[in-house]
Amino acid sequence: MIRITLIGSGNVAQHLIKAFTKSESVEIVQVFSRKKEKLSAVIDFDKIVDDFQDLIEADLYIIAVTDNAIAEVSKQLPFNNQLVVHTSGTASIETLEEKNRKGVFYPLQTFSKNKDVDFSVIPICLEAENTFDFHVLETVAKSISNAVFPINSEQRKALHVAAVFVNNFTNHLYQIGEEICEENKVPFEILKPLILETADKINTLSPVDAQTGPAKRNDTNTIDAHLDYLQDANQKNIYKILTQSIQNNGKEL
Amino acid sequence: MIRITLIGSGNVAQHLIKAFTKSESVEIVQVFSRKKEKLSAVIDFDKIVDDFQDLIEADLYIIAVTDNAIAEVSKQLPFNNQLVVHTSGTASIETLEEKNRKGVFYPLQTFSKNKDVDFSVIPICLEAENTFDFHVLETVAKSISNAVFPINSEQRKALHVAAVFVNNFTNHLYQIGEEICEENKVPFEILKPLILETADKINTLSPVDAQTGPAKRNDTNTIDAHLDYLQDANQKNIYKILTQSIQNNGKEL
Repeated sequence: MIRITLIGSGNVAQHLIKAFTKSESVEIVQVFSRKKEKLSAVIDFDKIVDDFQDLIEADLYIIAVTDNAIAEVSKQLPFNNQLVVHTSGTASIETLEEKNRKGVFYPLQTFSKNKDVDFSVIPICLEAENTFDFHVLETVAKSISNAVFPINSEQRKALHVAAVFVNNFTNHLYQIGEEICEENKVPFEILKPLILETADKINTLSPVDAQTGPAKRNDTNTIDAHLDYLQDANQKNIYKILTQSIQNNGKEL
Repeated sequence: MIRITLIGSGNVAQHLIKAFTKSESVEIVQVFSRKKEKLSAVIDFDKIVDDFQDLIEADLYIIAVTDNAIAEVSKQLPFNNQLVVHTSGTASIETLEEKNRKGVFYPLQTFSKNKDVDFSVIPICLEAENTFDFHVLETVAKSISNAVFPINSEQRKALHVAAVFVNNFTNHLYQIGEEICEENKVPFEILKPLILETADKINTLSPVDAQTGPAKRNDTNTIDAHLDYLQDANQKNIYKILTQSIQNNGKEL
């Protein structure tokens, strides 16, 4: 049984607590939160501490706080030479204070408060300073997920940038699609199967092979008609730039 | 039993043939194709004709050809006052020759040759010139799909532009994500659950409420680090413009 202490009370911390609670090979020893009441729904109240001095020994300390707070929190930990990891996709492993053995435990997913997630399919990216620590992280990760990957800090940086494109930017395109629908009294509902099908396709086809549409076909009549149709300068600009990028196959001119 | 003749042999035509063949309330009378052999896998060979003069009477003629060919094909039909529709998301109903009763039967989905689709969830957008014809189209559409919508030519134009954003452009962002992964030897696999989760979220949350990420949080440190990280001028430009658009909530400046 690997003994884990979690530090944080946000979305990632709460989803991890739920997942670890169900796992049989790890045990949550304590959870640290400045606001104890935020966690009352997910963990026994007597396991929550709000003073770093109250932390007891564990095999692994997971810091699941906002990026800006990682360095400060890791500095305040009142012990040395323990395995301490953060859960960030952007922060380097070096963000953690030197006095402990450092690592990263990064579940790559968007966590919404009101939406349950199936942790078993969430990729967890791991980094550690030595084989023993990596093995601990791997055991913990595999106890909740079937998709565990060794990813160093450089690779994680690339992954995070790529995630911004496929998640944040994609969702923004959904928003623009919804706005165009609403302006024309078309139910956005109609587009939902297309959105799901587009995402689902990557399981069988590489995106470059799955590409369709007027830009790919170089159908200039349709492209011109669409640009003419779009009245919002921002939407028009995004249409132009992504069309050009498809025509150049994603490469710079 | 509504008797249907299909004109065309591309992806849309083939998927429609497969769907209608399974339906019990419609019957495929004939299929027109210049290249008979292209359809040999999906329909009895003796139902395929390659000369417009061989077309016999049907209740509905569905022209499923490329946009550029719709006008010409509808002109060549050797009969008058029949119900003739096209399947295009972009062509107006007026693209069809006046001599017949016009309509549109537009299944809004991306059809790939090598990927089967579940037609029952594909939205079909219908337009006709009178109630009787609309009712015919509705009966046919409902025999293969549970999502049938009346959408006029103006609305269909909006829908198609919106579809380019949520399908073509989104898929292109997947491609960029894959490229960033490959350049850094990160398995694109890791991003697939995120892509599916992002798409799936629209079923429970409006995209504007689902938006996350550095642009939404106005996390300028991360945005600057990402822009600094991206070396390809095209990727950098797309990152900038979509970040600004999220920050302005999709509106022009």
